[in-house]
Amino acid sequence: MTQKFLAEYFGTMWLVFGGCGSAVLSANFPELGIGMLGVSLAFGLSVLTMIYSIGPISGSHLNPAISLGLWVAGKFEGKNLPYYFVAQLLGALSGASFLYVILMGKPDAIIGSFASNGYGELSPGKFELPSAFLMELVMTFMLIFIVLGATCDKAPKGISGISIGLGITLIHLISIPVTNTSINPARSTSQAIFSETAAMEQLWLFWVAPLIGAAIAGLIYKIFTIEVPE
Amino acid sequence: MTQKFLAEYFGTMWLVFGGCGSAVLSANFPELGIGMLGVSLAFGLSVLTMIYSIGPISGSHLNPAISLGLWVAGKFEGKNLPYYFVAQLLGALSGASFLYVILMGKPDAIIGSFASNGYGELSPGKFELPSAFLMELVMTFMLIFIVLGATCDKAPKGISGISIGLGITLIHLISIPVTNTSINPARSTSQAIFSETAAMEQLWLFWVAPLIGAAIAGLIYKIFTIEVPE
Amino acid sequence: MTQKFLAEYFGTMWLVFGGCGSAVLSANFPELGIGMLGVSLAFGLSVLTMIYSIGPISGSHLNPAISLGLWVAGKFEGKNLPYYFVAQLLGALSGASFLYVILMGKPDAIIGSFASNGYGELSPGKFELPSAFLMELVMTFMLIFIVLGATCDKAPKGISGISIGLGITLIHLISIPVTNTSINPARSTSQAIFSETAAMEQLWLFWVAPLIGAAIAGLIYKIFTIEVPE
Amino acid sequence: MTQKFLAEYFGTMWLVFGGCGSAVLSANFPELGIGMLGVSLAFGLSVLTMIYSIGPISGSHLNPAISLGLWVAGKFEGKNLPYYFVAQLLGALSGASFLYVILMGKPDAIIGSFASNGYGELSPGKFELPSAFLMELVMTFMLIFIVLGATCDKAPKGISGISIGLGITLIHLISIPVTNTSINPARSTSQAIFSETAAMEQLWLFWVAPLIGAAIAGLIYKIFTIEVPE
Repeated sequence: MTQKFLAEYFGTMWLVFGGCGSAVLSANFPELGIGMLGVSLAFGLSVLTMIYSIGPISGSHLNPAISLGLWVAGKFEGKNLPYYFVAQLLGALSGASFLYVILMGKPDAIIGSFASNGYGELSPGKFELPSAFLMELVMTFMLIFIVLGATCDKAPKGISGISIGLGITLIHLISIPVTNTSINPARSTSQAIFSETAAMEQLWLFWVAPLIGAAIAGLIYKIFTIEVPE
Repeated sequence: MTQKFLAEYFGTMWLVFGGCGSAVLSANFPELGIGMLGVSLAFGLSVLTMIYSIGPISGSHLNPAISLGLWVAGKFEGKNLPYYFVAQLLGALSGASFLYVILMGKPDAIIGSFASNGYGELSPGKFELPSAFLMELVMTFMLIFIVLGATCDKAPKGISGISIGLGITLIHLISIPVTNTSINPARSTSQAIFSETAAMEQLWLFWVAPLIGAAIAGLIYKIFTIEVPE
Repeated sequence: MTQKFLAEYFGTMWLVFGGCGSAVLSANFPELGIGMLGVSLAFGLSVLTMIYSIGPISGSHLNPAISLGLWVAGKFEGKNLPYYFVAQLLGALSGASFLYVILMGKPDAIIGSFASNGYGELSPGKFELPSAFLMELVMTFMLIFIVLGATCDKAPKGISGISIGLGITLIHLISIPVTNTSINPARSTSQAIFSETAAMEQLWLFWVAPLIGAAIAGLIYKIFTIEVPE
Repeated sequence: MTQKFLAEYFGTMWLVFGGCGSAVLSANFPELGIGMLGVSLAFGLSVLTMIYSIGPISGSHLNPAISLGLWVAGKFEGKNLPYYFVAQLLGALSGASFLYVILMGKPDAIIGSFASNGYGELSPGKFELPSAFLMELVMTFMLIFIVLGATCDKAPKGISGISIGLGITLIHLISIPVTNTSINPARSTSQAIFSETAAMEQLWLFWVAPLIGAAIAGLIYKIFTIEVPE
């Protein structure tokens, strides 16, 4: 368990530092910035690289919604849930702290909204609460769907990390304009804390919507797989 | 059959929501937008992720042209064609509806052409009908060619989803300026319905050209494989 | 042989249409264009998709320099060289013709330099002849090096198409500013013919430099592998 | 040993020419430039292509920090370290020289900072020394972590090059604005020598921070793996 805990802690730190770090540091760099496409790639690759390094240890969830969804689907032991949640939260906070420290090393640094998630005024494209809620719910649903599909017995071995990582890239390509893309309560929490905006007040959505979406996906998978003909 | 139907329905919903959604929501976002490159990637990854999740269930066609092409090539049972067509159409419409709902959650939302396909005045680069027709026919021909090649017995196992997904990305990199890239009648139909332009009047082309291209590819494959030395 | 000939013809047509097509049609599209990054990706993916479709038939060379390099390396029969050269040239010309036809369907179409290669005034970054020659020679050398490495017995099966395709993307990321990246005499010839610039006068370089680079790579490989300890 | 030496020499030349070359030649090309995203991809792909070509010969380190980290982790023989270091340094210098020669073939060529690394005034985003040091240390730590994870016995065979290459892309997506991304003392040295700025004075950091980060990663891995349950 200690190993799994450390792996999740460490992996989530990397996810937050890699994904949110690329957004905060590189997205809007004058003329050469990586934009939403680069940020989408960074989130996907941070997960891809972790699946191929800590995957064999902890499964590389890095996200409370994934742990929950896999538990509901019957692919993850419930007694491990609390440990994973704590490890992921602490990891995300460590990643955000580290990003904060790096950013403060720039004389004219601006924290602003950090890489926090939001709706309404805090949505990159000013999307209102209902759109944001629906988007997060469906995107997390799809995330669990892709994870469960890519790791099922019939799927080709070894490719799952590519499909899951690039699936996360795709989810960001679609939904950054709406909520800045959470699909991960730990990631959202870590950024809201540092944000200078009202992101903390909106944080509830980025726990509720992803967890509901994940639970629905896990449930459907469980019902679905029972019917699969052998 | 129920499983296959649901898988195709669901996968095509994801294809339309992912691909068209990235185009409508993220392509032209001020300064940071993902542009045609990001949209091309999104279409490819939406298919890639579905191949690795629903692939073992329905084959992950998500496109009437693919189902037709595989049938002509002798790799798909004709009696399933109608079910697949209906599932793909309903899935595409659901994806487009969902995208419409999300977009309406933005106060200053503009539907405009949605992510519809077109020629002449409705072509992104103002390409006329003959160019549009030829492009769609050849691009769908190539799509089927890539699908048949990547899934044949001699191809390396497990990689097919990468080749097909990135092939779809490539097709978009080439042809978005000409027709906004259909190669998929279900995708085109779903967008034309919501479009505020005259896209419905041009929809016929995005059924006829892709289906012809797919049928030709299937036919050539069938003739070709008979000659393959064992 | 007929099958191999057709496969090379067809694959090279796709390479030229995909790579050069994305450059001519999509690279500079106002605001949303795919730029050099998108074009680099398109060239790489056109080869990647062909390796996974026609690879088992003809080896998917699609390039006289690759056929020559593999022959020098002792991995390809010399008697097939002329057939491959002719198929590649005809395929490239067909791809370019098709691109020309599509482009002409735009009322305000400009051919200009098409996607031709060049040095001096015809180099995108105005690089002179010596830089252009050296770049083409070394890039083709590296191409053959990557191909030979990715397809040797010790390399993981099935991944070679990814390494070769993305290697071609990398080569374009580096060298588009210098020569618009040839590394392929067939591709250069097909574009020079349609170009309205003096590309035909510079075409010799895009035959000589790639073929020399390929031959050197093949030669080194042959000497090198003899020493490999079993 | 001669083979390994040559492989590391050659591979590091390609890494420097590919990664730094794309930065110097293509990053800032007017309107169509590949930007930080393209440069990040180029660095990753230069390593990916080498892993799949010279990987079976030398392991494709191409970086003194990787050789050191693997040695500390007990996965590389210490007696080979000096040979690898020399080969990597000479290879990087050759790659930089070649890039210099190519660039000089442009009439209005500007060397400027070449693709050198730096902090403070020489940091792309003007990040101060502490941020730069921390970033380089942690990024190299993560690089070794990803390498060790992707190549361990439990990891899927053949995919390691994809995970490592794209991990290097990710590292660049995050850290180019801070230090222009070194994580590789050989790469930094080769660029500082040609740079017209004060990059040589700052070169120490790009030896010290990456090597410390790599050594810590190797150490943790060694302690960690002892605990792994069989």
